[in-house]
Amino acid sequence: MMRNQGGQHHNSIKKREVKMTTTSFTLQEIFELAYKVMIKNGCNESNANALAKIVQSAERDGSHSHGLFRIPGYVKALRSGKVKGDALPVIKKITPNILKVSGNNCFAPLAQEMGLKEIVQITKKLGVGVLSLTEIHHFAALWPEVEYLAENNLVGIACTAYMPSVAPAGGNTPFFGTNPIAFAYPIPGKNPIVYDMATAAMAQGEVQIAARDEKKVPLGTGLDGDGKLTDDPKKILEGVLLPFGGYKGSAIALMVELLAAGVTGENFSYEAKENDNGDGGPPQGGEIIIALSPEIIGGSGWSKHVKDFYSRLSSIKGARIPGERRHKNRLDSGPREINTNLVDSINSLL
Amino acid sequence: MMRNQGGQHHNSIKKREVKMTTTSFTLQEIFELAYKVMIKNGCNESNANALAKIVQSAERDGSHSHGLFRIPGYVKALRSGKVKGDALPVIKKITPNILKVSGNNCFAPLAQEMGLKEIVQITKKLGVGVLSLTEIHHFAALWPEVEYLAENNLVGIACTAYMPSVAPAGGNTPFFGTNPIAFAYPIPGKNPIVYDMATAAMAQGEVQIAARDEKKVPLGTGLDGDGKLTDDPKKILEGVLLPFGGYKGSAIALMVELLAAGVTGENFSYEAKENDNGDGGPPQGGEIIIALSPEIIGGSGWSKHVKDFYSRLSSIKGARIPGERRHKNRLDSGPREINTNLVDSINSLL
Repeated sequence: MMRNQGGQHHNSIKKREVKMTTTSFTLQEIFELAYKVMIKNGCNESNANALAKIVQSAERDGSHSHGLFRIPGYVKALRSGKVKGDALPVIKKITPNILKVSGNNCFAPLAQEMGLKEIVQITKKLGVGVLSLTEIHHFAALWPEVEYLAENNLVGIACTAYMPSVAPAGGNTPFFGTNPIAFAYPIPGKNPIVYDMATAAMAQGEVQIAARDEKKVPLGTGLDGDGKLTDDPKKILEGVLLPFGGYKGSAIALMVELLAAGVTGENFSYEAKENDNGDGGPPQGGEIIIALSPEIIGGSGWSKHVKDFYSRLSSIKGARIPGERRHKNRLDSGPREINTNLVDSINSLL
Repeated sequence: MMRNQGGQHHNSIKKREVKMTTTSFTLQEIFELAYKVMIKNGCNESNANALAKIVQSAERDGSHSHGLFRIPGYVKALRSGKVKGDALPVIKKITPNILKVSGNNCFAPLAQEMGLKEIVQITKKLGVGVLSLTEIHHFAALWPEVEYLAENNLVGIACTAYMPSVAPAGGNTPFFGTNPIAFAYPIPGKNPIVYDMATAAMAQGEVQIAARDEKKVPLGTGLDGDGKLTDDPKKILEGVLLPFGGYKGSAIALMVELLAAGVTGENFSYEAKENDNGDGGPPQGGEIIIALSPEIIGGSGWSKHVKDFYSRLSSIKGARIPGERRHKNRLDSGPREINTNLVDSINSLL
């Protein structure tokens, strides 16, 4: 099934921008590789399945930094025993609107899978629902969870923290995680508006990939070990990332940290680091997902209203609709080119 | 009571940075001036009182662009009949968690006053509450509503849209309002963390003040009428503001627009403009306020948890705690210096 021997070629295609040896994988093969590695390293079927689906979706949509690239980290966390491959998350409804899923140290996707279906039902009935995920290990993109809500005609906001790598505006001490926030809004009859962005000037995964590929990053991405601006991603990985957009972006990073860890009662980024075993895999943390029903809150006109909005926004020259690129990538059901060094390192984990 | 005759002096104090004639007002006098102008221009007691309190709070905290500076605009909206000075907002509970306040074209503060108390009760019981405000005219800061939630040990997020003045990233057509987002998190025993920021690179009120005072603004604040970057605030007022932080800030502005207008079912910024009578006062729009209980969602340890977080953040050299400056200004119960030209123009409305 794997064609990782025959598919190798030197890639000089412009869109990849750098010369890199890649291997062709069908989407099914990507799923299978991820699934197999997870099973081999101690995941049960449900954990491996949830995780492999998330990895496959990331590669399908072109989010390489959240796809197979994460596998070595996932495996480290399983091998060190930090993540339980056979963990069974426990769902508890705290109030009619608040659903708490304790992951019991599973990878996040399984806990999300279990909570999202129920939060959709809650929100369709009551107009608002909150899914609080604790004792999970989040290492993937955040858009899948909010996109799922939007596919159910709900609005979704999701936040998670991580380990300190971003300095608050004005400081040069790592304090925030890259603290992503994801947002999705349903556009009936069209792909939803969906975004998922680190509140760091650049996601750490992207900085890691730039370092691996020996590319420079824009000035303002981060500071080196001496607190000075640098465009060298390797120096930033030894120093500290900056939030996007100065003190305003720092305020958003702060909100994400407080929602994901303060409200859920899980580790703040600095606690995640202090409690982590340093295996290189994702630390224990929390995630908050807020769901809203525009139909219940805004009324039956909500659908036409947002479709008109979408048309207006789309008609602005140069403006981009968040999620459009991913949804376009998704139309291609053909094979994906995966960095061969990465494939080799994943195969070594089998 | 007013000392706006005797209090005049040429201000050459460094902290004001520009030479400007000012008049001293006690906080009580600021309230009374605002109240009197509102009553004189058709507000009933409850509308005038709610508005004057908000104006007073802004001046008390040093938020000049949202204090008396707004009075001429408020009066324009009353005189044109767009805002009803005797409007009585109507509260309706749509679900156990969703409170909808139809302002019947009041200024926002009265509708907020009526909805906030009840949303606190709802959220303390159910863990989450949403206050959807429609048919209101919002022209003030957003921090008072979220700070009120934080004073009740709740987390608050508030968003409102306005009229198109900000281009989405990549475009140069005004589409978003300055679309502020406010966030507050309670820190038991201390002032809450509170911020209120335009998702424009600069709030329009600040650009207006810079134009009035003939100051330059940072490059990146906006584009002139030809779509070119400029540091001249007057040219930006004829052109278009930019979102803060590039495409990521633009994504936040988009979220604010969709929450404040999409979810509530009220005017998007472009609709607000199309439906407005052009009197220069605040257009009809919506506001969404989301309240969360960290105690219900996160558990009883929430208070110690966030106090530790606050200590850590405060200990970082150079980092600033959002809201700190306003809370510090608030400790000064003495008179405030108000631009005399503004005082004159307000007095002419009596």
